[in-house]
Amino acid sequence: MMGSTKEKIWLLSRRYGLSPLHRILLGHDGSMTVLLELIVCCEVALTTISQSVVPCPGEAAKLLGVDTGEAVNERDILIVRKGDRTPLLYARSYTPLSRLKPEFKTDLMRADIPIGRIMQKYRMEARREILDVGYLERSQQLESLLQCNAPFLWRVYNIITEGKALITIKEFFPRSLT
Amino acid sequence: MMGSTKEKIWLLSRRYGLSPLHRILLGHDGSMTVLLELIVCCEVALTTISQSVVPCPGEAAKLLGVDTGEAVNERDILIVRKGDRTPLLYARSYTPLSRLKPEFKTDLMRADIPIGRIMQKYRMEARREILDVGYLERSQQLESLLQCNAPFLWRVYNIITEGKALITIKEFFPRSLT
Repeated sequence: MMGSTKEKIWLLSRRYGLSPLHRILLGHDGSMTVLLELIVCCEVALTTISQSVVPCPGEAAKLLGVDTGEAVNERDILIVRKGDRTPLLYARSYTPLSRLKPEFKTDLMRADIPIGRIMQKYRMEARREILDVGYLERSQQLESLLQCNAPFLWRVYNIITEGKALITIKEFFPRSLT
Repeated sequence: MMGSTKEKIWLLSRRYGLSPLHRILLGHDGSMTVLLELIVCCEVALTTISQSVVPCPGEAAKLLGVDTGEAVNERDILIVRKGDRTPLLYARSYTPLSRLKPEFKTDLMRADIPIGRIMQKYRMEARREILDVGYLERSQQLESLLQCNAPFLWRVYNIITEGKALITIKEFFPRSLT
């Protein structure tokens, strides 16, 4: 976690009275799937909302260090409790096709597998760089997707392998998650 | 996190009534330094209790995949709150000298720097493999080191870089931490 992100989490924590669990969800640098399973104490699953290859939008291109318009896989997903399918987290991610190894690509583009599980399967070594965090007072779209009331917390991070960003992810989760 | 470890955490959680924070401390696969700072919402620091190059004990050798007796750096440390020096966690780690790159070795052996920070400094890509977790009803030694009452929780994990275990770590923290 970069110093500036840490400071921002502490600031949000004071301003909104966040709990340790909120701060962990915002700032930890491990697998989000693993973290959510530890929090809810049961298996979680991924539901793909949409997925397509698109020209990379400017903002994502800057975070990934690729040219705007380069082919990227855009994926919108929910992570839900496996049992009752309660939504826990919504995420949109961008992955440059040029950085995807064939086997990883198949798993990422075909099936409802969380990225952390794919990385575990291939014993991939990586680091996660938390780039930004925030607090969202209201969003009808997220209330509908996550089936719960605002506010929401969000974070943006890169997963870096072999010195390059493999994927950039923006995640939203309800404050009421914990 | 391997399936068997996950099951064990859920078992411990039911048996001892653990909180989500306890389960995260046992099972997360990110940096422990980052996690502790997010939990206590302030900077943490490392205090070295002892450090020396020793012949690798059998148990650590098995976890690291090296020969028993190979030269390893044994390090006993506390992670404490930076402000009031309250101990948060005690750890013993073993690192085979043969797997240490020169710059990393200097930082690891010279100074009071948490391993997560050293890895961040060198932008190292890695994965953490949680090998075992447990619950310790009593330990006078830990009560003295961590300046608090039992029980304690513990975990053993490897940090793997370039396909090999760079370090194996056993960590103990008080149940009363959170």
